[in-house]
Amino acid sequence: MSTEAKQITKKSVNLSEWYTDVILRGELADYAPVRGCMVYRPYGYALWERVKTLLDRRIRATGAEEVYYPLFIPRSLLQRESEHVEGFSPQVAWVTIGGGEKLAEPLAIRPTSEAIIGVMWQKWIGSYRDLPVLHNQWCNVVRWEKATRPFLRTLEFLWQEGHTAHRTEADARAETELMLEVYRALAEDDLAMAVIAGPKSESERFAGAVETFSIEAMMPDGKALQSGTSHFLGQNFARAFDVKFLDEDNIEKFVWTTSWGVSHRIVGGIILMHGDDNGLILPPLVAPYQVVVVPILFEETKAETLRAASRLTELVGKGRAFDEPIRATADLDEASTPGFKFTKWEVRGVPVRFELGPKELANSRVVAVSRDTRAKRELRFDLEAGTFDHEGLSEMLGELHARMRARARKELESRVFQIDGFDEFSEVVAGRGFALAGWDGRPETEAAVKEATAATIRVLKSRVDSGKLKSVYSGDSASYLAYWGQSY
Amino acid sequence: MSTEAKQITKKSVNLSEWYTDVILRGELADYAPVRGCMVYRPYGYALWERVKTLLDRRIRATGAEEVYYPLFIPRSLLQRESEHVEGFSPQVAWVTIGGGEKLAEPLAIRPTSEAIIGVMWQKWIGSYRDLPVLHNQWCNVVRWEKATRPFLRTLEFLWQEGHTAHRTEADARAETELMLEVYRALAEDDLAMAVIAGPKSESERFAGAVETFSIEAMMPDGKALQSGTSHFLGQNFARAFDVKFLDEDNIEKFVWTTSWGVSHRIVGGIILMHGDDNGLILPPLVAPYQVVVVPILFEETKAETLRAASRLTELVGKGRAFDEPIRATADLDEASTPGFKFTKWEVRGVPVRFELGPKELANSRVVAVSRDTRAKRELRFDLEAGTFDHEGLSEMLGELHARMRARARKELESRVFQIDGFDEFSEVVAGRGFALAGWDGRPETEAAVKEATAATIRVLKSRVDSGKLKSVYSGDSASYLAYWGQSY
Repeated sequence: MSTEAKQITKKSVNLSEWYTDVILRGELADYAPVRGCMVYRPYGYALWERVKTLLDRRIRATGAEEVYYPLFIPRSLLQRESEHVEGFSPQVAWVTIGGGEKLAEPLAIRPTSEAIIGVMWQKWIGSYRDLPVLHNQWCNVVRWEKATRPFLRTLEFLWQEGHTAHRTEADARAETELMLEVYRALAEDDLAMAVIAGPKSESERFAGAVETFSIEAMMPDGKALQSGTSHFLGQNFARAFDVKFLDEDNIEKFVWTTSWGVSHRIVGGIILMHGDDNGLILPPLVAPYQVVVVPILFEETKAETLRAASRLTELVGKGRAFDEPIRATADLDEASTPGFKFTKWEVRGVPVRFELGPKELANSRVVAVSRDTRAKRELRFDLEAGTFDHEGLSEMLGELHARMRARARKELESRVFQIDGFDEFSEVVAGRGFALAGWDGRPETEAAVKEATAATIRVLKSRVDSGKLKSVYSGDSASYLAYWGQSY
Repeated sequence: MSTEAKQITKKSVNLSEWYTDVILRGELADYAPVRGCMVYRPYGYALWERVKTLLDRRIRATGAEEVYYPLFIPRSLLQRESEHVEGFSPQVAWVTIGGGEKLAEPLAIRPTSEAIIGVMWQKWIGSYRDLPVLHNQWCNVVRWEKATRPFLRTLEFLWQEGHTAHRTEADARAETELMLEVYRALAEDDLAMAVIAGPKSESERFAGAVETFSIEAMMPDGKALQSGTSHFLGQNFARAFDVKFLDEDNIEKFVWTTSWGVSHRIVGGIILMHGDDNGLILPPLVAPYQVVVVPILFEETKAETLRAASRLTELVGKGRAFDEPIRATADLDEASTPGFKFTKWEVRGVPVRFELGPKELANSRVVAVSRDTRAKRELRFDLEAGTFDHEGLSEMLGELHARMRARARKELESRVFQIDGFDEFSEVVAGRGFALAGWDGRPETEAAVKEATAATIRVLKSRVDSGKLKSVYSGDSASYLAYWGQSY
């Protein structure tokens, strides 16, 4: 499996080929023998598991509880909310045969779970004392997509979907905003990405939502990546599924609901946003391994260097960074050269590489190399005494995280362009980044812009007073200042 | 949602109704609006998550890595291994429509993943240096069952499936045995169940396996529950999917594979095996909460008792039991009585209940009640000093675990009957337990016994020398001593 020996395509030369190369050669994932589906290999799954761990911690801190609703949704349930079914039915995979017989009613593989959840809530929720209901599930969903790419867009994908029911509109709106902030914090504080956050325009809303909020990251090719969405569903689903509660004032009312999700697509964002010509650069909080120890082997000192490398790896794992145990591994394969291993682990984006040879051992030091800058630093490692400079390593990881975050922020800022004319607009959205431009609030203008430039409103930045700003394309008075861009 | 106020059916009166009652009223799960599917509510999902945590730890300790293979298996792949397809196709759910169009080839929802894994391994495995491959995934699978019950048998179920590839037959056989032992240890050491473990007869093997091993627990109604299986697949799947490697001797060989799985059915086993007339009794290692603090409220001391209960819960959570932080919760609902809460948490099977009132507070004590014996013990709790007797609690939990384990073992032993005649055999398997009886090794004998008594061979205990023992039913010389029983 030593495919790493071959050079990967340079990121600066061809982003798309580089993306495929790092995923396949870094052994994150592979194409499944089903169109549009992928297989997670151990390293890729470990990366997703880290995202899960970090996000789940934030979700649970909001009070949400873990649940599991079924994979199948009978057709009649999916049809109850009219906008919902209209939005999703073109993308549904239908089970029509089970146990050797044609089913009386086809079952949808869940594209999202609002419909089946509505039915259960109708049963469970009776009084204001049962509210709020804060549920989250980690599961697989299926949407029949045409063009697919590993992580970014797949028929089956892994995600988390949160669903909440509230007593008042204000509570539900507050939940929607809270979760948008959770997603922003995940992306920026944990994954060292930079995002813009805000409401979508009507045409880009979740099917059945009153309002959709999104976090959007900017990729190196100037395209936006929608990386998490939070929906205020109003009472649409409550009405469709008759989810009512008896309020304290003894009046029966419909609940107010929200839903929110982040999928494995954000792994695609991590990959695209942070890598360089040599491969992935994984933010230390999410890296399956934060450190890889590479022993520098010479014939006469091989055995002791290998032993020391094992011992060092074990010692490193006893330290902490970001309030968690440090994740370290050693590459003790005797059949490959240090150079081969450097390349292999650079492709895989391990944040810090340790180089340990007889010279380092003699000096009670290990050479530590940051993945992003390749800057070297020596850290104290005394094999005899069994001591290691955990603080120095933790500092390196913290600094690396800070650098990655700052770079991402700077990159994002350099890709937002205040736009006046439509020519400039078209040029910006065709590969440069976000166009910050006025919108008259009319879907027709959005549709015309999309037709002409493939760009859509990613999020609305703010309302603007009438007459202060002109809308892109139409030239009419703008109602909103919006971030426009092409997207994945 | 205060349905607990009603009495649940007594376990000693009607096991089946009791089972449904504890699941629904204990809010573990509910029936989904799709035949044979269930919804996990937070308490039930937390229980499953505990099983996952405990089992995953054991699986990872064997060196297996987490992966994720896709939900869909194209029909042609499922058909490659002939016994496999024959065994599973009657149970498959087929997706025939996707994205609004009839699919050229129907896609099976995975009933198990050997087929799709075979294709990937054919691609990834090239040399003996790539072996062993040790993969495990936690996922949902679908089998179109006729009669279903929550946890015990559902159309969609949650499980883990491990798949491994090895260089030699010996390695693969060792893996099969290792995982059987992992499952035994999970059931007995973590879940305080008692099981018998051993090989299945040919007719009960996994479709495509050379040999299947199983752990079987005995339920209070005298029926066996197959709780985990480990399969030695020989080279059957390797041949069907052409998974070869170049060995050290430069000869191309087929790999040897295994697969092994435990599903959420084991949650059904925990429920059935340990409960009593008052509800669940959860083994402390797997209980979502190990302790529930119930404040005893009087009007004049309400506020301080509630505060003390919160403080106690927090303090308890800082202690450890079974090498993990103790999981404690407080029931601070002011609208319900202590008696209501006692019943509620007994139905839910929380191992230890704390009762904290003004009297206990004045004496710097809390009353601790074991769920199984209802024996009371006082534990030191000094609110002022902020101290609590963690050791005493940890001891209580340890003793409870040991009692539950011993009871389960004793119960199992009391339900194994050495059998001579067929009348006695029939009587034993019809509700008393396992019949330990001879088998002549012929499938026809097994089939006839099944026809006559609904009992099957659960596992083979040992080979017996010719002439030493007679086979049940046929009266011929027995080749095996076997555990026979009806099963879930």
